[in-house]
Amino acid sequence: MATKKMNAFYAQSGGVTAVINASACGVIETARKHKDKIGKVYAGRNGIIGALTEDLIDTSKESAAAIAALRHTPAGAFGSCRYKLKSLEANKREYDRLIEVFKAHNIGYFFYNGGGDSADTCLKVSQLGEAMGYPLQAIHVPKTVDNDLPITDNCPGFGSVAKYIAVSTLEATYDVRSMAKTSTKVFVLEVMGRHAGWIAAAGAMASTKDFELPIVVLFPEVPFDQTKFLAKVDALVKKFGYCTVVVSEGCHWPDGKFLAEQGTRDAFGHAQLGGAAPVVANMVKDALGHKFHWGVADYLQRAARHVASKTDVEQAYATGKAAVECALRGHNSVMPTIDRVSDKPYRWKVGLAPLSKVANVEKMMPKNFISPDGFGITDKCRTYLAPLIKGEDYPPYRDGLPRYVTLKNVAVARRLPEFKV
Amino acid sequence: MATKKMNAFYAQSGGVTAVINASACGVIETARKHKDKIGKVYAGRNGIIGALTEDLIDTSKESAAAIAALRHTPAGAFGSCRYKLKSLEANKREYDRLIEVFKAHNIGYFFYNGGGDSADTCLKVSQLGEAMGYPLQAIHVPKTVDNDLPITDNCPGFGSVAKYIAVSTLEATYDVRSMAKTSTKVFVLEVMGRHAGWIAAAGAMASTKDFELPIVVLFPEVPFDQTKFLAKVDALVKKFGYCTVVVSEGCHWPDGKFLAEQGTRDAFGHAQLGGAAPVVANMVKDALGHKFHWGVADYLQRAARHVASKTDVEQAYATGKAAVECALRGHNSVMPTIDRVSDKPYRWKVGLAPLSKVANVEKMMPKNFISPDGFGITDKCRTYLAPLIKGEDYPPYRDGLPRYVTLKNVAVARRLPEFKV
Repeated sequence: MATKKMNAFYAQSGGVTAVINASACGVIETARKHKDKIGKVYAGRNGIIGALTEDLIDTSKESAAAIAALRHTPAGAFGSCRYKLKSLEANKREYDRLIEVFKAHNIGYFFYNGGGDSADTCLKVSQLGEAMGYPLQAIHVPKTVDNDLPITDNCPGFGSVAKYIAVSTLEATYDVRSMAKTSTKVFVLEVMGRHAGWIAAAGAMASTKDFELPIVVLFPEVPFDQTKFLAKVDALVKKFGYCTVVVSEGCHWPDGKFLAEQGTRDAFGHAQLGGAAPVVANMVKDALGHKFHWGVADYLQRAARHVASKTDVEQAYATGKAAVECALRGHNSVMPTIDRVSDKPYRWKVGLAPLSKVANVEKMMPKNFISPDGFGITDKCRTYLAPLIKGEDYPPYRDGLPRYVTLKNVAVARRLPEFKV
Repeated sequence: MATKKMNAFYAQSGGVTAVINASACGVIETARKHKDKIGKVYAGRNGIIGALTEDLIDTSKESAAAIAALRHTPAGAFGSCRYKLKSLEANKREYDRLIEVFKAHNIGYFFYNGGGDSADTCLKVSQLGEAMGYPLQAIHVPKTVDNDLPITDNCPGFGSVAKYIAVSTLEATYDVRSMAKTSTKVFVLEVMGRHAGWIAAAGAMASTKDFELPIVVLFPEVPFDQTKFLAKVDALVKKFGYCTVVVSEGCHWPDGKFLAEQGTRDAFGHAQLGGAAPVVANMVKDALGHKFHWGVADYLQRAARHVASKTDVEQAYATGKAAVECALRGHNSVMPTIDRVSDKPYRWKVGLAPLSKVANVEKMMPKNFISPDGFGITDKCRTYLAPLIKGEDYPPYRDGLPRYVTLKNVAVARRLPEFKV
C-alpha cells in the first residue's frame, strides 16, 4: 500500500457502454474526496495506449460539474481502445514502459475499467509492480455489455443494454402487431452477443406473465435449427397473427458458421454485407411468405444512455467508488464485484474478487436460463434479469437532446521520450 | 351537421407511430366529454378494413384509465392497415358497404387517422356521404412519420421519430468517437424516409452550434455522388478521427436505383438481403480502409415512445381533440393542422385545412433546408426541427418496462351480412 501521497491512473478499455463513464465518475469523485492520499487522477487518452505513449489527461482540470455529468454520459469520455498487452515474456518492453510512465508521474494506483481481456492486463500490471519493486496497486473496474465476467453477479453496462433491448423489443412488437393484418407479420431484431446470449435473452423480457407476446429468441448457445425455427414462427403467427424474432449476432449453424455469413456477394463479388437479421427475415419470407421488417441495433443498444437502467448506473458508479476505496484500504490485484444478496426485494452489495480468478475466465449463460425448446428464457432467467433492467435514470435534456458532457481532456506535460506502440 | 346524437367511427391507417394512440386518446376523451352529441366511439379493428368487414370495437368498454394510457402507448391500439380504397368509380361496392355499416351502427362521425393516402380516403368518404344523402362528417386526423402532409407545419408522429434519431445519432457518435483510435472509425445509421429526408435531417441535429460533431447525412433528395461522399468522409475522419453517416433508406444513385439494391445475392441466388447502411459502410471500408459499424433503426425509430417528443405528444393529442371539436362545430371534410405561430419561443395553434387541398399532395423538404454540399442541414432547417424534438414525455414504468396498454378491444355485435375485402 502506498504510504505517501501518489497519483492515480484510470483508463477505459474495449467496447464502451452507456455507463462506463458512471464508473469513471465513481473513481474520480471518490479520489477527490481523499486528496490526502490520492493526488491527481490521470486518465489514459484512448485507454492503455495513453499510458504507453505518455498521453495522460489531467482530470483535475475538469470542474466538479463536468465530472458529475459523466454519470449520465454514455461511451468513453477519455477514449477507449482495443489493445491487449501480450504476456510479460512476449512484450517486456511495453510493461517496462508502463512502469516508467507511472514512475515519471508518481502514479501509485492503477484503475482499469474493462472486461475480461482488461482484467488480464490489470493482473499483469499488478504482478509487474511487485516483480519490479514498484509500489503499484492495480484494481480492475468491471465493465462489459457481454455480462461474461466471472464471480460478479452481473457486469456494469449489461443492465442498460438489456433494458434498451427489452424496451425496443416491446415497442417494435406493438408496432408489428398493429400492422399484421394487411402488412408486416414478422419483425426481426439483431442484437449484440457473439458468444453469449445474455443480450438476446433480454428481448424475451418484453413478454411478461401478465401479458404474453410472441417473441422468438435465437441464442448463440443453441445451434440454429432452421426447420424447428420456421415451425415456431409459423405456429406463433397462426396463433397471434404476428411475431418478433430477436436474433443474436452470434447465432450460428450447427457447423459453427454464423447465420450472417450467408455467402452473400454484391454485384462486384464482395463478400457479405448484411447481418443475421436480414438473413433470418428473408428465410421466414421464403418459407412462410410473411412480409417482414428487420432492424440491427448495433451501437445504438450499448450507447443508449437515454434509457439506461437505474440499477446499472448505480452499480457502475458503486464499483468505481469501491475500486478507489479498496485501494485506499490497501488492496491490490482485485476487482469490485456485484454480489446479489436477494432477488425479491432485489438487494446487492459490492464485494471483492482476486484478479487471478477473474482474468481469462468467461462466464456463460447457465443452460437452465434457456427454455427447453431453445427459443426463450426460463423463470430462473427472468428472476435474474428483472432487477438488472429496473429503474430509470434519465439524463438531463436541453433543446430536446440529452446534455452529455464532452470533457476538456487537457494533456499532462510529457516527461519521457516518445514511445511507439 | 348531425342534429341528433350519433356514434363516431375512428380508425388508424398506414404505418403506425409513437403517438398515433395519443391522437386516439384525444378523439375518445373529447368524444366522451360530449355524450349529449356523440354516442359511442367505435374503432375499426385494423383500420378501414374493420369498417368494411363490420369488425367494430366498442371503445366504451374501455376504462378511462385505459383510454388515458393510450397517450403514452406507441403503435396502433386498434390495429392499422395498409389498404387504399380505390376511386368511387372503380370500387363503388366498398363505398356502398361503408355507408351501409355506418347506417347500421348509427355512425355520423368518421375520424380517420393517417397520412396522405388516408386523407384521400377520408375525402372520398365525405363526398360519398354528401352524394348519398347520408349525414356523415369526415374528419382527417394527421399522422405520418414522413412529415409530408401539406398545409400543416408538421405531422404528428414525425417529432418523436426525429427525436429518437437525433438522440441515437448523438449517442452512437459518442460511441464511435471513443473507439476510433484503435477500432471503429465510421458508424453508419440507416433511417426511414423513402421519398423525403425529414428523418435523416434529424440525425444532423445531434451536432449543435455549441458542439460540432462530424455527421454526414445522405438524403433521398440528393442523388448519391460516391466520389464526393467518400471525400467528405475522408476529410471528416482526418479532422475528427471518426464520423457518423446517417443514410436515408431512400438514398439513391443518379439513375434512381436505391443504394440498398446493390445486386446483392446470397448463396442460393436470392436477391438483396441488406439495407443501405451495410452498402455505405462497406463502400467506406473498401475506399478508405476504415473499420465500421452499422445499424438499421427500422421499427425501433417509429415505435420509440420511450423517448417521444413532448411537443409531438401534445400535438398528436391536440389534433385528435380538435377533430372531434370541429366535427361538433359542424365541419366536414377537413383536417386539423398544426400552425406555427412563432419559432422562438415556439408557439403553435391548431388550424383547419380542407381535405381537398390535403389529399394527394406531398410536401417535400424545402431545398434550402439542405446544406449546399448536400450532406447536412441549414440553419433554416434547424430552426424548423428544434421545437419538434423538444421536451420529454416519459411513459410510466413498472419492473423496468414501460406500462403500455393493450386494450380489451371488445367487438360490437354484427348487424349485417358478411363482406369480403
